[in-house]
Amino acid sequence: MTSRPNSLLLAVTGWHEESWLDRFRRLLPDRDTVSAREPFDPASIRYAATWKHRPGVLSNLPNLEAVFSLGAGIDHLATDPNLPDVPVLRVVDQDLTERMSEYVVMHCLMHLRKGWTYADRQRRGVWEDDREQPAARDVRVGIMGLGVLGGDSARKLRIMGFDVAGWSRTKREIDGIPTYAGEGELPAFLARTDILVVLLPLTADTRGLLDARLFAGLARDGRLGGPILVNAGRGGLQVETDILAALDDGTLKAATLDVFETEPLPSASRLWTHPAVQITPHNAAMSDPDAIASAVAAQIRRHEGGQSFINAVDLTRGY
Amino acid sequence: MTSRPNSLLLAVTGWHEESWLDRFRRLLPDRDTVSAREPFDPASIRYAATWKHRPGVLSNLPNLEAVFSLGAGIDHLATDPNLPDVPVLRVVDQDLTERMSEYVVMHCLMHLRKGWTYADRQRRGVWEDDREQPAARDVRVGIMGLGVLGGDSARKLRIMGFDVAGWSRTKREIDGIPTYAGEGELPAFLARTDILVVLLPLTADTRGLLDARLFAGLARDGRLGGPILVNAGRGGLQVETDILAALDDGTLKAATLDVFETEPLPSASRLWTHPAVQITPHNAAMSDPDAIASAVAAQIRRHEGGQSFINAVDLTRGY
Repeated sequence: MTSRPNSLLLAVTGWHEESWLDRFRRLLPDRDTVSAREPFDPASIRYAATWKHRPGVLSNLPNLEAVFSLGAGIDHLATDPNLPDVPVLRVVDQDLTERMSEYVVMHCLMHLRKGWTYADRQRRGVWEDDREQPAARDVRVGIMGLGVLGGDSARKLRIMGFDVAGWSRTKREIDGIPTYAGEGELPAFLARTDILVVLLPLTADTRGLLDARLFAGLARDGRLGGPILVNAGRGGLQVETDILAALDDGTLKAATLDVFETEPLPSASRLWTHPAVQITPHNAAMSDPDAIASAVAAQIRRHEGGQSFINAVDLTRGY
Repeated sequence: MTSRPNSLLLAVTGWHEESWLDRFRRLLPDRDTVSAREPFDPASIRYAATWKHRPGVLSNLPNLEAVFSLGAGIDHLATDPNLPDVPVLRVVDQDLTERMSEYVVMHCLMHLRKGWTYADRQRRGVWEDDREQPAARDVRVGIMGLGVLGGDSARKLRIMGFDVAGWSRTKREIDGIPTYAGEGELPAFLARTDILVVLLPLTADTRGLLDARLFAGLARDGRLGGPILVNAGRGGLQVETDILAALDDGTLKAATLDVFETEPLPSASRLWTHPAVQITPHNAAMSDPDAIASAVAAQIRRHEGGQSFINAVDLTRGY
């Protein structure tokens, strides 16, 4: 043990803890990396690396200097009432951005090109082509959330030909893409949206935003036979009973969901078996664990070399 | 009837003939458009608009000035021994190019992101995430055929992050994409290819090219667990018994096929039910029929205004 507090606390749930301990021990051999599941000395902890940490585990760490989020969001930190007043740092990882765009472009194309319909026809042994199908330029994608992820998805969807617009809480400019901002411009944004792609952070303002009222505002005159929801942001953004009702009454034509109110999605949920729902297990933007761990180690070395932390989060804003 | 020969002969099979007759009659109201299925006066025909025409129907048209292909390929014309010696014109349509890139990018992403695996898990009610998945940059896509379609697909796949290279019969330069040419460089091209995307024309040289020997040359050291075939070119390029054998013995991991030796794919084909095969009904690049008909009408007006035809095909080369 070193005499001054120098340890990294790993506090994750739902992830393979051992492999993360290995990574950090390899990258930071000059200090201890300890698991929050084992007994540890609170005074020894200088940094915490977290993902959906156990409530309370970050309080009473007298020598804590920074908390890292190992995933894309920081809502597990923003909603922790016992979070100590130290910098909260998030991962900004090119890899994660590209993964999200892969997911978003792929699922928008699958809806445009009826990929799920043709897969179903194959299962039934049916060779049947729908002659008249819209081109990407005939389909309006609306992206909610125009941070690093939303901006990259917007740019790539546009290159694939889609008619793209974006919405964010505060006005953002993206080259060549019309943007809308705030509550006031939300109706106009929704009214021109055939595929709604949601990449918003989860905050007090956005919780439950994807509800019956919002779905009713989506375009009714599109070329896909009804509006489509793609949520790759956070499960807390959506009201799942409203999604199911909207799918059943035709307000929504389809939904691709990577995130859910409760994860893993409970087996009793009707989303599992609804024919218009595509489910992925919250893996739209899995980052390379080695890349994340390296970014955290680099931040620690930068800090200890006298430089400022980068990618600090504003917890009052929530992202 | 006009006194000089001025009619357009529509000779298509497998398409909805009536709607094509309507289109041409609307676009060319100053002349007759006649169906090759009905009796017609051979001397009255000045142009022919074709897709998989009935053999012999284009011979003995003494006043024929040009033949149009209404689809992406011209192999139905190149293989007609009775084709008269007049210009053969193909459709070069931006819409068709974009559709093909939609298809290619979508299916490459579905393989990269295991889209079919997650859809299958949903059907089984399984929430299971494969943590370690390669990024697009870790996956090498090789495109065979670097014409307008191949070039656009290559560019868009690269923007999505894939490690793209191309192969063509004669050397082509594409900005930022390594290219290989001819028989001699085929082994090196195949050896660096994890996903093989085939957009070749069907010629005497390319018929049956996608066989056991070619599959055996694909990369064995890739990140997808084996090489994957995506054929959106022509069914005649592939040897389907070899594809099935390669899938069964692990030489290929998966195949996405839009085209087949016989179309519609016979219901007895094992491709229908093979778990590693994705089938679409030859609709990767459906062009907008109105756009195609307009392009043909514009060529006719250009010709009759004294200008040369554009997009003429070299039938000895086959594309």
